[in-house]
Amino acid sequence: MILRPKLHWLRMLFVWRGSVLPIIMPQLVATTTFAILITLLHGAILSWKVSLNFVPFSLIGITLAIFLGFRNSTAYARYWEARTLLGTILVAARSLAGQGMSLSSDPQAAKSLAYRLCAFSHAVKHQLRGTDPRDDLRHFLSAEDAQKVQESRYPAAKSLWFTNQWVGENLRQGNIQAAVVPALEQSIAQLGAALGGCERIASTPIPFTYSVIIHRCIYLYCFWLPFGLQDAIGYMTPVIVCIIAYTFFALEALGAQLEDPFGTESNDLPLSAIAYTVEASVLELVGEAPRTEQPMLKDFVLL
Amino acid sequence: MILRPKLHWLRMLFVWRGSVLPIIMPQLVATTTFAILITLLHGAILSWKVSLNFVPFSLIGITLAIFLGFRNSTAYARYWEARTLLGTILVAARSLAGQGMSLSSDPQAAKSLAYRLCAFSHAVKHQLRGTDPRDDLRHFLSAEDAQKVQESRYPAAKSLWFTNQWVGENLRQGNIQAAVVPALEQSIAQLGAALGGCERIASTPIPFTYSVIIHRCIYLYCFWLPFGLQDAIGYMTPVIVCIIAYTFFALEALGAQLEDPFGTESNDLPLSAIAYTVEASVLELVGEAPRTEQPMLKDFVLL
Amino acid sequence: MILRPKLHWLRMLFVWRGSVLPIIMPQLVATTTFAILITLLHGAILSWKVSLNFVPFSLIGITLAIFLGFRNSTAYARYWEARTLLGTILVAARSLAGQGMSLSSDPQAAKSLAYRLCAFSHAVKHQLRGTDPRDDLRHFLSAEDAQKVQESRYPAAKSLWFTNQWVGENLRQGNIQAAVVPALEQSIAQLGAALGGCERIASTPIPFTYSVIIHRCIYLYCFWLPFGLQDAIGYMTPVIVCIIAYTFFALEALGAQLEDPFGTESNDLPLSAIAYTVEASVLELVGEAPRTEQPMLKDFVLL
Amino acid sequence: MILRPKLHWLRMLFVWRGSVLPIIMPQLVATTTFAILITLLHGAILSWKVSLNFVPFSLIGITLAIFLGFRNSTAYARYWEARTLLGTILVAARSLAGQGMSLSSDPQAAKSLAYRLCAFSHAVKHQLRGTDPRDDLRHFLSAEDAQKVQESRYPAAKSLWFTNQWVGENLRQGNIQAAVVPALEQSIAQLGAALGGCERIASTPIPFTYSVIIHRCIYLYCFWLPFGLQDAIGYMTPVIVCIIAYTFFALEALGAQLEDPFGTESNDLPLSAIAYTVEASVLELVGEAPRTEQPMLKDFVLL
Amino acid sequence: MILRPKLHWLRMLFVWRGSVLPIIMPQLVATTTFAILITLLHGAILSWKVSLNFVPFSLIGITLAIFLGFRNSTAYARYWEARTLLGTILVAARSLAGQGMSLSSDPQAAKSLAYRLCAFSHAVKHQLRGTDPRDDLRHFLSAEDAQKVQESRYPAAKSLWFTNQWVGENLRQGNIQAAVVPALEQSIAQLGAALGGCERIASTPIPFTYSVIIHRCIYLYCFWLPFGLQDAIGYMTPVIVCIIAYTFFALEALGAQLEDPFGTESNDLPLSAIAYTVEASVLELVGEAPRTEQPMLKDFVLL
Repeated sequence: MILRPKLHWLRMLFVWRGSVLPIIMPQLVATTTFAILITLLHGAILSWKVSLNFVPFSLIGITLAIFLGFRNSTAYARYWEARTLLGTILVAARSLAGQGMSLSSDPQAAKSLAYRLCAFSHAVKHQLRGTDPRDDLRHFLSAEDAQKVQESRYPAAKSLWFTNQWVGENLRQGNIQAAVVPALEQSIAQLGAALGGCERIASTPIPFTYSVIIHRCIYLYCFWLPFGLQDAIGYMTPVIVCIIAYTFFALEALGAQLEDPFGTESNDLPLSAIAYTVEASVLELVGEAPRTEQPMLKDFVLL
Repeated sequence: MILRPKLHWLRMLFVWRGSVLPIIMPQLVATTTFAILITLLHGAILSWKVSLNFVPFSLIGITLAIFLGFRNSTAYARYWEARTLLGTILVAARSLAGQGMSLSSDPQAAKSLAYRLCAFSHAVKHQLRGTDPRDDLRHFLSAEDAQKVQESRYPAAKSLWFTNQWVGENLRQGNIQAAVVPALEQSIAQLGAALGGCERIASTPIPFTYSVIIHRCIYLYCFWLPFGLQDAIGYMTPVIVCIIAYTFFALEALGAQLEDPFGTESNDLPLSAIAYTVEASVLELVGEAPRTEQPMLKDFVLL
Repeated sequence: MILRPKLHWLRMLFVWRGSVLPIIMPQLVATTTFAILITLLHGAILSWKVSLNFVPFSLIGITLAIFLGFRNSTAYARYWEARTLLGTILVAARSLAGQGMSLSSDPQAAKSLAYRLCAFSHAVKHQLRGTDPRDDLRHFLSAEDAQKVQESRYPAAKSLWFTNQWVGENLRQGNIQAAVVPALEQSIAQLGAALGGCERIASTPIPFTYSVIIHRCIYLYCFWLPFGLQDAIGYMTPVIVCIIAYTFFALEALGAQLEDPFGTESNDLPLSAIAYTVEASVLELVGEAPRTEQPMLKDFVLL
Repeated sequence: MILRPKLHWLRMLFVWRGSVLPIIMPQLVATTTFAILITLLHGAILSWKVSLNFVPFSLIGITLAIFLGFRNSTAYARYWEARTLLGTILVAARSLAGQGMSLSSDPQAAKSLAYRLCAFSHAVKHQLRGTDPRDDLRHFLSAEDAQKVQESRYPAAKSLWFTNQWVGENLRQGNIQAAVVPALEQSIAQLGAALGGCERIASTPIPFTYSVIIHRCIYLYCFWLPFGLQDAIGYMTPVIVCIIAYTFFALEALGAQLEDPFGTESNDLPLSAIAYTVEASVLELVGEAPRTEQPMLKDFVLL
Repeated sequence: MILRPKLHWLRMLFVWRGSVLPIIMPQLVATTTFAILITLLHGAILSWKVSLNFVPFSLIGITLAIFLGFRNSTAYARYWEARTLLGTILVAARSLAGQGMSLSSDPQAAKSLAYRLCAFSHAVKHQLRGTDPRDDLRHFLSAEDAQKVQESRYPAAKSLWFTNQWVGENLRQGNIQAAVVPALEQSIAQLGAALGGCERIASTPIPFTYSVIIHRCIYLYCFWLPFGLQDAIGYMTPVIVCIIAYTFFALEALGAQLEDPFGTESNDLPLSAIAYTVEASVLELVGEAPRTEQPMLKDFVLL
């Protein structure tokens, strides 16, 4: 996630970091070069004049804009849903830790619950990013339990199970009363739902065919555009083609980034920072300091 | 569902699998042929010149785009709601299995609950796809219970009932306390709600009249379009008609696929893979290996 | 609700059932006739030439399309919310019947609960359609209770009360434990919420003023359109006016149908079929056959 | 809320009640008069010809339409959320009354709960409309309690507190068991949430700056429009300006009405009718007749 | 938040407070000046005529409008979600205070709970605004507890923990029964979820890249616009450029304000007023007067 102080409107026009320009540069250069070529040839290929004007482009343009808009709203909705689910993990972890502290009769047990929650939040991060949870888990779980999580097919779900286990054990030991268990289970269910939601977003892309249709339309549009503009605006054609292509390519590229928000591209969600927040917040409740290192902003990007 | 690694932007222009081109080929060829014909005849039918220009098409075009956009958003919303409901089945099944393991005093009983959940997830898949659940059910249910499910009018609901039954029996046997039952019932209710939601989507198409109106407008538009373009852009008419028709036909065809996401077309939801995930995840919690075969990606398509 | 197998794209152009053409025929004929008249008079009324071209129509057209789109999305959202609420009735009825079966110690009592749920689902149908529930209720309620429901100002709410009553009686008789009552009450509350939601949709139309503004704009647009097109496209004017008017009138008419989805028009929700599904599903859980007649598809329409 | 039987399409063009025409008349007349003046002057002010054509208006028009559309959807979303919250009050009040009747061992106590719910629903109405609750409250509360509600800074919240109180008292007296209290508290929490939601909508308008920007754009657009149209369509300019201005002004005026749906304008929500429905429905459950007068439809308007 | 009585339509055109004009003045003046310059030079730079007409602008304009519309809807959705979350704090605080009063057997304990809720609501305000909570907290917490909150990394979460603590202590002292704890925990969980939601909105801006793309497109558009209009509308170019630039700049600026709704700009949410309402409402329930000063409307702005 890119975090930077509000920029002056002039400064914002020329900002480089946080722009998708580097990603779409090749396409943009190719399209503009082609437009320059067509302009120099006055819209003719092998002295065969292509008879196009702006009419078809205004017919297609709006359709394209509406569907690119749909693609973008959908990608953003996935991004925001993912963020909300990660926020739910923070909320439910705090809630469960607080319930453990206040409702159990053994304060030491509550700490054990807090550690399991920290392990869960780091396990989620590593599962979604496909990284190795070993280093983070050993701060919070016994070697044996950490091993079980790592060997699991669904490590985050496995580590959530330890909180279920905590409830079962403390119920049997009489540390918590049966009547308050539904409240604890409610919080655990929320953690499970948030995890399941993240897994769903990670495993289900926007239907591939959408991307194909929109991708093709954008490139067909930008490819033919110089022929359509060249009679009307002459040597300004490449400039306008470049601007239009920038808008379309940039929005498509950003959509592709937001669609899968768990990666490590600069617009992706700061999974590490969120996992750290869960850890710090839960450990603070039980009166301890965080055990892993706080992820820092680097080049305005937080991961 | 189509799953393929991110493609280069050039490669993506010419991808064949995952494109709806094969489906809309006949219409597209028909429309383009007609446009070529009209262009050759210079827009005249039986030497009777059709007096159209682009004006009416820009008037209709935007309306069409907005309604096709509505149709598409609606179809996608159904697709995503269906995916979310299936995700809820995973979440609630894990949650219930975990509660069964931790809150009941008989570990063997918890395994029995897990088997019932696996049976449920496969029953949902078979009911939505209209296939025979026999082979999958026998892994998890007694012959007698499997028979009951198969003979039932609503097999998935019937197999969910076995989890209710489990709660009732274990409550009466004292394996679980009455006070924790609401937590278990909450998870069962979520499974029932997810099933009911899938049944709703499967049984209620987008109002047929919408499809008719939009279908008619698209074809009327593409049929008259050559007459409107031909004076302005001459022999480029068929190219442009083909591009516009491709956009409209492709989006309509994709909408029709997403609208009913439980089938086995390449953009449909991977019901088998999801049912397998529920099984593997729930059995892992009770310390067992999956019993059915894992569905694999085939030609980039997961079913 | 119209249910028909997927049609070939050519067949779909000429389908008559499920189209709104019959409803909008008068307006469409009137508008087209007027357009023909104007074309014959070359856009002049009493030899007074109306000086219009397409410019104003492109200015108004897009605004009109956006607001007609809003009107339509809103109508569809009501339709889909209503369908979801009816689906919730199925889900919660099954859930409650299952809980009654598994959590009460008296199997006969569970049957009594199932009957009350069937009565509720039919009472909802009759209340929303304004029909007489007598014939359906007598299958499930005692003559006295059926009488009470029929005489009630809010019959569906009254019949839902019988499930509350069931919980109270069985709690007092010791058939169910107090600790599981919240789970049962949760399901009853969902039934009540679904009923209340349906009542809300039925009693609150889309603000009348919206319909007036959009209706007026559509007709003003189609009335003036021939004057605007006639200089540009001559004798093709009536054809284009007819196509544009068809799109606008059809979408407006469909919006009006979907907005109030509890009626018996062909695009309305199949209340009878849903009530029957609730009955069949709940009775199957308690091991009985349905008692009312199953509503069948007739001319592709299910009511 | 305007409730009238479906009108014939011709009748609907000329309906006066329910139209916002009376409200926007002054602006509409001013704009049209100005357009007539400009047309007579042939677009020149003090023989200084204003060089405008339709181009800028098509550039601005679509932006304006999109933002007016956003403004309208937002206003409607507030209207519908408010309606849904009021519906929740009906649902939760019925639910709580039913629970009180079935779960408490003292039928007389249940009546007392029902009266408190009636008082709450009327208190909500009066608080949102800013009217005096005295007359309605005395039907349901003791003089002392009614006094407390009236003197309260948040009268509706105060009257909801009496239901909390009822639960506490009946719990202490042993009329209800502790284990069922969460079910009752759930219903009370829903009533509180619905009230809070209504207070939120009533106290938070759509950001004022939106209204300002959109208002200014609409008027700037309609003011300059005659200059842009007059060369193209001559003496038809005032007609077209009047139609376009009608669309924009009418949608803006309706948006302003819907945005604050608790007033007594004709498109506002029927708070009185809803409060009466809550009362009638809850009292019917405890076997009593309504005590306040039923609000009737007057000139097709229900308040 | 700007609160002002409804203005007359003429008055609203010239209102200054609540307009974003002051913020966008520099850009607007720069753009208009540039347009005047280009108009005086007849679209030529260094006697090199820029060959542009309105065509490219109608192609880009609609895309720009759609994406600016998306940006705005997203910003407003954040604003409204934030408002709803703050409303939930009021709702759940009232609910919890009411439950404390009615379900605990010690009225003095209920007051202690109410104070903790007031402290929480003020802690939320100060955390979101980054201000010092000292002055507000000392009204409600002991010096020691206030100190703990202030030293905490997550002060609002820490102060919410005191309500958890209250439940634990009163449960152990027998003031409340275990069976009612889930109802109390439900309310606390809602408070935690509302806090977490606010923290999420405050810490996660709309992806920076969106702002960059849209910002660039708007400025590129307004910069080239004079060249495109100047042949068509001559000396009216600066007027039209100014109007179009005003619309775009104003909507962008408002979007940027709403996106981060917890600040102290005039369109931001009235955090102080809401915290005061929570305090006043909760203290009224326990029969006390508010202890902090009521924030007042100042220049039509409530903070």
